[in-house]
Amino acid sequence: MKFNDALSDICTKKNSHLCVGLDVDLTKVPAHFNNTDDPLVEFGKAIIQATSEYAAAFKINTAFFEAYGVPGWQALAKLSKILPDDVIKIADAKRGDIGNTSRMYARAFFREMPFDCITVNPYLGHDAVSPFIEDEEKGAFILCVTSNKGAADFQYLEADNKTLYSQIARKVDRWNESKNCGLVVGATHPDEIRKVREIAPELPFLIPGIGAQGGDLELSVRYSMDKSRAAVIFNSSRGIIYASQQENFAEMAAQKSKQMRDAINALK
Amino acid sequence: MKFNDALSDICTKKNSHLCVGLDVDLTKVPAHFNNTDDPLVEFGKAIIQATSEYAAAFKINTAFFEAYGVPGWQALAKLSKILPDDVIKIADAKRGDIGNTSRMYARAFFREMPFDCITVNPYLGHDAVSPFIEDEEKGAFILCVTSNKGAADFQYLEADNKTLYSQIARKVDRWNESKNCGLVVGATHPDEIRKVREIAPELPFLIPGIGAQGGDLELSVRYSMDKSRAAVIFNSSRGIIYASQQENFAEMAAQKSKQMRDAINALK
Repeated sequence: MKFNDALSDICTKKNSHLCVGLDVDLTKVPAHFNNTDDPLVEFGKAIIQATSEYAAAFKINTAFFEAYGVPGWQALAKLSKILPDDVIKIADAKRGDIGNTSRMYARAFFREMPFDCITVNPYLGHDAVSPFIEDEEKGAFILCVTSNKGAADFQYLEADNKTLYSQIARKVDRWNESKNCGLVVGATHPDEIRKVREIAPELPFLIPGIGAQGGDLELSVRYSMDKSRAAVIFNSSRGIIYASQQENFAEMAAQKSKQMRDAINALK
Repeated sequence: MKFNDALSDICTKKNSHLCVGLDVDLTKVPAHFNNTDDPLVEFGKAIIQATSEYAAAFKINTAFFEAYGVPGWQALAKLSKILPDDVIKIADAKRGDIGNTSRMYARAFFREMPFDCITVNPYLGHDAVSPFIEDEEKGAFILCVTSNKGAADFQYLEADNKTLYSQIARKVDRWNESKNCGLVVGATHPDEIRKVREIAPELPFLIPGIGAQGGDLELSVRYSMDKSRAAVIFNSSRGIIYASQQENFAEMAAQKSKQMRDAINALK
């Protein structure tokens, strides 16, 4: 099945548009995990078990694993393999390089690990993206408007009254021949979500920034979903996985993810 | 010592502007390596030994290690630690994410591994780059004009008669407060090297594309070095490390890297 269809199906079946982001920082996990053999995996596993009922997708942020060296990459590989089958598995890796190199990254995330899709940086253009979308069952969420302050540095530059991010949205819309491209559009920029949705009515959106980063959930839902049947998923990382740093962290993560799922569903 | 000064010093001391790129593809290494326990490391080590006399820098392309899963990341970590002290150690990782995430990548490459600098994608703006340049001894080469065909998709978009890549060069020139920023400008685009050098006379350049990608060495040297005292390094990967796939691969790699070093020195 084409990636974008698989994503839509899962959102429908699970009645959820929630993506839980696994940015596992060992300085923030409940203290008792630091006595286990493999705290990155044990904490990740506990969060997955607690929240997968409510999640359409899990997004693993590769940086938080690379930061721990070889054991970190081992944990990344292990966690990717224990993600349940009824979610979309996103490698939040922000990769993108010349063709022969992107091909190696695609192999890393799609063959060595069982991710369904990856986040990709568009700066290097089409041949940097194409190895990630050659297989219609695998997808790429391409950075369009990011949720951080630095987004303003280049993404909003205008040529012929068109911002850079809107030109990227236009191109990605054309690259979506196999129905396996999506866009990353931050909830911290709801006006831009509206503009990008007008440009690309059929592309799935991955919307980060609704939790700790303070994005506007109501406007983000309205502008991304009102006039489109494309799948949209909203990511929360820190707001869910560190909802509590006490023994009840899993219970609180479950509660927060249920709340978030329901809040999105109530708004759509 | 500030990163940019350290780079200049090494180029002077070694009388070299050559960067050897370690893009180790096991389908291209001499057959006998595939009988060793750790062919990625063994081949890499042999190339380092054969070429380090002629190289100012080594650039390890992370994709080619990630593609081999956990053993690949282990090999990356090992290789990074056996690079000699008299070269600049570049992680060609093309990372870049929101601040808290780039911080984790900086930890991966600068603390877990002993790289001196990293290639960074500028699309997410200043806060994505800043964790890599907080320590003046560590540096970042920020993508400006890449050597691939897809470079034309976005890098040449023009606003107010200024291309995106030139706006990036301008910003990076301002971010260079600690003298530890450089730019990646592909040898496949010599005219752009000229333009970027005018914008940023003091920034080091990392110039890929002179080998298998067919960039113009003569113009690249002239336009990057004629009117600037900033350090410039030229990367060749495939042209050196796969100069021969026979038993004499190391000898040939040494010969090719010496030729390349001398060719650059003769042109400057």
